[in-house]
Amino acid sequence: MAQGTKSISSPVRIGICAPSTPFTREGAERVVALATESHPQAELIFDEQCFFEHGHFAGSDEQRLESFVALANNPAIDAIWFARGGYGAARIAEAAISRLDHNANHKTYLGYSDAGNMLGALYRANIGVVAHGPMPSDIGRTGGEEAVRRALDWIVRKQANALEPGLVSGQKHAAFNVMTLAMMTGTELMPDLRDHILIVEEISEYLYAFDRAMFHICSNLAEHGLSGIKLGRVSDIPKNDRPFGEDPEAIAKRWSEDNEIAYLGRADIGHDAHNRIVPFGLLEI
Amino acid sequence: MAQGTKSISSPVRIGICAPSTPFTREGAERVVALATESHPQAELIFDEQCFFEHGHFAGSDEQRLESFVALANNPAIDAIWFARGGYGAARIAEAAISRLDHNANHKTYLGYSDAGNMLGALYRANIGVVAHGPMPSDIGRTGGEEAVRRALDWIVRKQANALEPGLVSGQKHAAFNVMTLAMMTGTELMPDLRDHILIVEEISEYLYAFDRAMFHICSNLAEHGLSGIKLGRVSDIPKNDRPFGEDPEAIAKRWSEDNEIAYLGRADIGHDAHNRIVPFGLLEI
Repeated sequence: MAQGTKSISSPVRIGICAPSTPFTREGAERVVALATESHPQAELIFDEQCFFEHGHFAGSDEQRLESFVALANNPAIDAIWFARGGYGAARIAEAAISRLDHNANHKTYLGYSDAGNMLGALYRANIGVVAHGPMPSDIGRTGGEEAVRRALDWIVRKQANALEPGLVSGQKHAAFNVMTLAMMTGTELMPDLRDHILIVEEISEYLYAFDRAMFHICSNLAEHGLSGIKLGRVSDIPKNDRPFGEDPEAIAKRWSEDNEIAYLGRADIGHDAHNRIVPFGLLEI
Repeated sequence: MAQGTKSISSPVRIGICAPSTPFTREGAERVVALATESHPQAELIFDEQCFFEHGHFAGSDEQRLESFVALANNPAIDAIWFARGGYGAARIAEAAISRLDHNANHKTYLGYSDAGNMLGALYRANIGVVAHGPMPSDIGRTGGEEAVRRALDWIVRKQANALEPGLVSGQKHAAFNVMTLAMMTGTELMPDLRDHILIVEEISEYLYAFDRAMFHICSNLAEHGLSGIKLGRVSDIPKNDRPFGEDPEAIAKRWSEDNEIAYLGRADIGHDAHNRIVPFGLLEI
C-alpha cells in the first residue's frame, strides 16, 4: 500500500470541534447515525466543546482554541471537521496555528462560512489538506443529509464526485464566504492566493453589502496575481426598501474587471445542501 | 484680512451632492429654511443630482461622480457637504480624486457614514479641509436641526464648540464609521493614519459583525503607528437570537489592546443628532 493511502477497511477518525458557534446534541446524533449507515469506516468524535455555550460562542475563546489544538495535535485523529460557522474563528485562528505541531500536518480540514478563518490560516501556514465544504450543521438543512454524505465522501475517500465540478486539474483553487474573506484581508489569517482561482459565495447580506465587500476583496487582491474569480451562490438576500439595480453576478463581474481580475463565471458552492467540495491549492485529481 | 479668512458678511457657498443614496426635496427645503434663519451668510446649493434615483443610488456612478467633481472644481464654491450616506461612495471616490483640480484644494468637505469613503480618499490625497460630521439628511432625525446647525457652525464659522470635545490640540485625528473603514483598508481610498487618534462609530450592526470588523480594522492598523482608538456611539444594535456576551466598549478595547493599539475611551460621535465634528489631521485650535 502506498504511503499515505488507506485501505478501505482502516478506520478514519474524524475530530469535530466548533471554533465559532455551538452545535446541538440532537444534530450531532443525526450526523453520527447517518455516518454509521453510509460511511462505516468513519469514526466521528464530537468534542464536548461543540455543545458549550458562552454568549455568542461555543465556549470561551480559550475553550474553542484548546479543543481545536488538542484534536489537531492528536496523532490518532485523521481529519478535523468544523461543526458550524456563525462567527468566532477569527478570534482564535492565529493563536491556534502557533500551537500546532507536526501531527497537524497530515490531516484533512473541512468547513466553510466562518470556518474559512481556520481554512485560510491553515493554508497560509501550509498545514494539512484544507478544503471548503459542508459541515455537520448542514444536517439541519433541507436535503442536508446529502451535504453531510458529500463531506464524508471527501474526508473518508477523497471521492472525485464530491468536488465542485468546475475545478481544473493542475490549477490552484481556494474558496471562501465573501464577508469572511473581506474581514481576513490584511490580517495574519490571509493566505497567499497568487495563481489561484478564488471561488466565493454569500448568504443573508443586502446587495449593497455584497457590492461593498466585493469592492474590498477585489481592490485588496488586484495586485496579488489571482488566476481569476468564480461566483458561487448568493442566497437569502434580504429585501431592501428599494431594488439595488444589479444582480450578484453583475456585481462580481464588474468589481473583478475593474481590478483587472478575470471573472470566470459561476461555481457550485453556497450555504445550501448542494455545496460541493473545493480543496485548497493545486488540484491533482 | 488674512489670506484664507472671511469677513462675517462674506457669503459662504456650500455645494451639496450625494455620492451614495438620494436625499429628498422636502428634506432639502427644511435644511435651506433652517440655514436661512440660523446662518444667513451660508448659500446652500443642492445639486439636482441629490434627488436622482438609480437603483440603490442617487443616480448612476457617472452622475454621482460628475456632480461631485463639478462642485469640487468650481472656484465659486467654498465647501462640499455630502447630503447623505447609505452606500455608493466607494464606487466613485478613486475616480473622483483623479479628476480634481486646484480649485478643490481650498474647500471644506463634511460628511460621515458612507461619505467616509470620500473623506478618506480626499485626506489621503491631501485635498481640502476634511471633517467627519452631520449631513443634510440628519434633518430627518429627532433633534436633527441641532445637528444641521452644528454642521453649518463648522462649515461657515469653524466654531470650536462644534468640535468633538475630547479632541486634543496639536494632535492628529480622523473619524469613520466602523464598517465603512473596514471596507476601505487596503484599497486606494485608505489614508495614512500614522500618529492619528482614530475615532470610530457604528450603527445597525449585530455585535458579532462589530467584533469582526474591529478584528479587521485593528489587525490591519496594528503596524501603522496609530496614536490610539476612541469609540463613539454604537447604536441600534439588532437583537440576535442570543446575547453576544460583551458590550461594544469591551470589544473595541480588547481588539485594540490585542493589536498593541492604545484604547483611549469614548468620543461624542455617532449616527445621531449629537454627532460632533472631527476635523481630519492636526488640530490647531
